[in-house]
Amino acid sequence: MNDHIVSSFDDDLDKVESLVLEMGGLVEQQLVNATLALVNQDSKLAKQVVKGDARIDKLEGEVNVMTVQVLAIRQPFADDLRTVITTLKLASHLESIGNYAKNMARRTRAISKASAFSGSTGTLKRMSELVQQMVRETLDAYTHRDVELAELVRNRDEDVDQLLNSLFREMLTYMMEDPRHISGCMHILFIAKNIERMGDHITDMAEEILFLVNGKWPKDKRPKGDRTSTLIIEPGEDDEDDDAHFEDDES
Amino acid sequence: MNDHIVSSFDDDLDKVESLVLEMGGLVEQQLVNATLALVNQDSKLAKQVVKGDARIDKLEGEVNVMTVQVLAIRQPFADDLRTVITTLKLASHLESIGNYAKNMARRTRAISKASAFSGSTGTLKRMSELVQQMVRETLDAYTHRDVELAELVRNRDEDVDQLLNSLFREMLTYMMEDPRHISGCMHILFIAKNIERMGDHITDMAEEILFLVNGKWPKDKRPKGDRTSTLIIEPGEDDEDDDAHFEDDES
Repeated sequence: MNDHIVSSFDDDLDKVESLVLEMGGLVEQQLVNATLALVNQDSKLAKQVVKGDARIDKLEGEVNVMTVQVLAIRQPFADDLRTVITTLKLASHLESIGNYAKNMARRTRAISKASAFSGSTGTLKRMSELVQQMVRETLDAYTHRDVELAELVRNRDEDVDQLLNSLFREMLTYMMEDPRHISGCMHILFIAKNIERMGDHITDMAEEILFLVNGKWPKDKRPKGDRTSTLIIEPGEDDEDDDAHFEDDES
Repeated sequence: MNDHIVSSFDDDLDKVESLVLEMGGLVEQQLVNATLALVNQDSKLAKQVVKGDARIDKLEGEVNVMTVQVLAIRQPFADDLRTVITTLKLASHLESIGNYAKNMARRTRAISKASAFSGSTGTLKRMSELVQQMVRETLDAYTHRDVELAELVRNRDEDVDQLLNSLFREMLTYMMEDPRHISGCMHILFIAKNIERMGDHITDMAEEILFLVNGKWPKDKRPKGDRTSTLIIEPGEDDEDDDAHFEDDES
């Protein structure tokens, strides 16, 4: 009997899933390296990250092709169908996260050349480590269809947003202190915003997994903590009055 | 004979497609309104945009559900299958663009309260109008499976990126001039970056349409013009030397 002929839907699905897990591992590594490149001002490593993104894009292409093949040949129903569609979506999110890691690596040189200060990269590093952990946990939640872990990831995103908020505030005051800080701070903020967007994608992935396992979307409002969109700081502003400058985030 | 029973794959597909087109129309309108709210400092309209995003999310949910149903019931092959998958992806991109429009509207109040200057909103308006046009053209390209129009959209994205580049440069100099400008400029730059990301999503949609019609991805490198990730400006820097601060974008 020929193995190719008896291969089942489950075999096909395993292959697609392992491609997605491979993507996830690469994405995590890209984020680790992009962060290292930034913190250590390692332009060689940054270049490696920029180049490395092509592999993730290629894997997403393979997932797309395989998904369509599985749908066409196996014509899955119900849960199986939902699994295939979820896998397709997870791959798309991972590709986006990979792009953000690439963009992060691209800014390495800009920060090294700008009159930057290194303290802030500590916060970026913490944000990045949180997101790396979220990627790992999400892939675990996917592999084991672990609803509790997926919920945990969703809540962790708030921590990322809170780090962004405090960094935003800190950078604004640095910029006001000395115009030579502005260019560097801007790049740091854009990187922080990129990391926060990665967190958003991972939260979306966690919600996809919840949908996959539970068959319905989580009902509670998604935790959301990025308030930089309504944050205003003026030079010489009284710190105690800061809270008045926040609006409720309605997301 | 019962209409429900004789409904064909084409009928189902028409329904999903019309949902996506409805999403596209809403997204375009959200972007128009978010821009108007910003330019006219219209906080009422801004709130309306923030609220309006839920309708787009709901439509995406409907597209997801209908897509899975069509796949399960019709079990389409080849071109039909590709059409269904493409439609699913277009809906996901439109939902992301809608999110960016919502975020844009959220910043309206921040800009009005910050010590902002109104000149820069002109560039934001031009960027937004370009993206609005790209949305319309992409939906047209999708409806008519128009490869040439899809190619046109891809090239237009470079214009958006170029506007972002010049705005970035302009804002940096404003910020260096007077620290009271910093907070407002930051918000304007984040909005500009949001609009640029919308452009990226539309470019991805155009490429999906090219894949749908041609059966393969465009081979040429995607036009890419956002160079802000490597842009560095220092206070008092000689303008003529600016180009030296750009790196080639390898995206």
